[in-house]
Amino acid sequence: MKIIVDAMGGDNAPEETVKGGVLAASQSDYDIILVGKGEEILRVIEKEGYKELPRGIEIVNATQVIETEEDPAMAFRVKEDSSLTVALNLLRDGGGDALVSAGSTGALLSGATLVVKRVRGIRRAALAPVIPSTTGSFVLIDCGANSDCSPEYLIQFAYMGSFYAEDILRIQSPRVGLLNNGTERTKGTQLQLDTYGLLEKAKQEGHLNFVGNVEAKDAMMGACDVVVCDGFTGNIFLKSIEGTASLIMSQLKSVFLSGPKTKVGALLVKKDLSALKEKLNPDAIGGTPLLGISKPVIKAHGSSSAQAIANAIKQAALAADADISGKLSENAHKVGGQSKCNLNQRNCDQKKRGCI
Amino acid sequence: MKIIVDAMGGDNAPEETVKGGVLAASQSDYDIILVGKGEEILRVIEKEGYKELPRGIEIVNATQVIETEEDPAMAFRVKEDSSLTVALNLLRDGGGDALVSAGSTGALLSGATLVVKRVRGIRRAALAPVIPSTTGSFVLIDCGANSDCSPEYLIQFAYMGSFYAEDILRIQSPRVGLLNNGTERTKGTQLQLDTYGLLEKAKQEGHLNFVGNVEAKDAMMGACDVVVCDGFTGNIFLKSIEGTASLIMSQLKSVFLSGPKTKVGALLVKKDLSALKEKLNPDAIGGTPLLGISKPVIKAHGSSSAQAIANAIKQAALAADADISGKLSENAHKVGGQSKCNLNQRNCDQKKRGCI
Repeated sequence: MKIIVDAMGGDNAPEETVKGGVLAASQSDYDIILVGKGEEILRVIEKEGYKELPRGIEIVNATQVIETEEDPAMAFRVKEDSSLTVALNLLRDGGGDALVSAGSTGALLSGATLVVKRVRGIRRAALAPVIPSTTGSFVLIDCGANSDCSPEYLIQFAYMGSFYAEDILRIQSPRVGLLNNGTERTKGTQLQLDTYGLLEKAKQEGHLNFVGNVEAKDAMMGACDVVVCDGFTGNIFLKSIEGTASLIMSQLKSVFLSGPKTKVGALLVKKDLSALKEKLNPDAIGGTPLLGISKPVIKAHGSSSAQAIANAIKQAALAADADISGKLSENAHKVGGQSKCNLNQRNCDQKKRGCI
Repeated sequence: MKIIVDAMGGDNAPEETVKGGVLAASQSDYDIILVGKGEEILRVIEKEGYKELPRGIEIVNATQVIETEEDPAMAFRVKEDSSLTVALNLLRDGGGDALVSAGSTGALLSGATLVVKRVRGIRRAALAPVIPSTTGSFVLIDCGANSDCSPEYLIQFAYMGSFYAEDILRIQSPRVGLLNNGTERTKGTQLQLDTYGLLEKAKQEGHLNFVGNVEAKDAMMGACDVVVCDGFTGNIFLKSIEGTASLIMSQLKSVFLSGPKTKVGALLVKKDLSALKEKLNPDAIGGTPLLGISKPVIKAHGSSSAQAIANAIKQAALAADADISGKLSENAHKVGGQSKCNLNQRNCDQKKRGCI
């Protein structure tokens, strides 16, 4: 198993990305291909105390770097020798089994779509992070790749999320819920109303375990295993989870630091609180799969630590093993949903992108 | 000042609503009109130890109750002698200065719109709860009244939220942010793109302190005082805050109960943790104003305690004092936004409701 790592992508690159790659190689029998500025990569490896390349580590040189503030689609086209472009070409050409990048989400999304391509029949790739809930966790799909969505996209997201939950999270017959502002059949905008019908049909045909509409709060309480929504809504959901967790943790810190008594209290619960923090820590899972691309691509958090990169690499290896893309291809006839797109011309961004 | 309370609305009615009304009357010089089944209301008052009606309490009889599971619009029309209908008629006819209900949101929304009417020129009433942030709090508007929105609705929400923040929360020149999936000008769906332009224009004309797009996480970190969004997105935002808070609090409880050491730790921080819980407690604020209605209407949480009802009554009195509706009327020429509605026919729910 060979995992390609965009060594220059992310806020802490190349230090943490390289250290993460070395860590993953030392803990497994994967080969790691670090793509980026060779000299800088070697410098990090030397600083880590290695006099020669550690076992399982390869370096592929790329002279350019895509910065976060660059226009994602443009940067990817203009910088032909960027670490991301070289890494994606390598993945497409079979030089590795999966790719991990902590760089710009937009550049990764457009790059993966243009170079590695989507699975045939899949209309949009989607970001699908795994979110903790009171009873375990759930897959949130899409969480930011596609702001404007049609019901056809959403039914495909439902299948992709369901396959991921089944094959990676090992959940039998995953419960699929449609994120909505109420549980009643009549809730939501036209998008949710139309998608509900498609999901119900897929359930009746025995393809999906659709459990109906779910509210954001109930999703956090473990109401289902896959939460389906458009990328705009998914992003708001994800970011408000992050925001609320930050708010509570910062308040908790002030509570613990407020006096000598509470400081002692804090010491007594410190270890257990760390476990809680770990559960809510994006680094623990490491990355978000970009589902619908013909080969496994994992987006690691922009601020990933070495440990987070190592975790994302493990996740990439699991995804390559499970062959979600292959499963999507095999099930293309089901996954296709309805052929008519429900987006009106005004709201449609497919035309711009040359999709229809 | 007279505040009308729908004594039969809410999960804990009439016990908590009546006790809340009595509590508010005992703590202030407001007169409270409890609307509902007279005998049941009197029974609660007697159980509280009163032998006659407490000072400041009036009862107006209504023989019917709207249940949460009923179709809101239908129930409101069919049950002409429901506590909500009688309370709304009373408000319209000048029998009180503001209304509080913990009953069905949908019934309150359609009832208030049909009976008390919207401020002239306002296209939609919106729910605008006050949400805690790391630096204080912000108004979230709309958080569930209108799933499908046009840019015109959103610019009106921005004005309504801004007036509320200024007059009730006492924030000078409130910073208005547009909830989006990124801060860049080009982010979001067509709705956000079009609304951005209108908000920018209102800023240039000196009417609104628009600070640009805000992400959900940054809103929780205090990026602005008013967060503007459609009701679908607002509902997802609010419910995920609630869900995350529940998740963390339940995990925290397990941490504290996990062993004798942590139990001692819990005792030491108990008091300060309660203060934190209070900050995140919907009861502490009490209610969500329904802005855009010609008289003050406050939706209290369905599971409101007596204290929450009392707080909602205080909030209703503040709203009546501040006369937000009057301010909206005075500023109708600014608040009107653009006259053309951007919703296409398919997504438009106005036609059904006879709005255009």
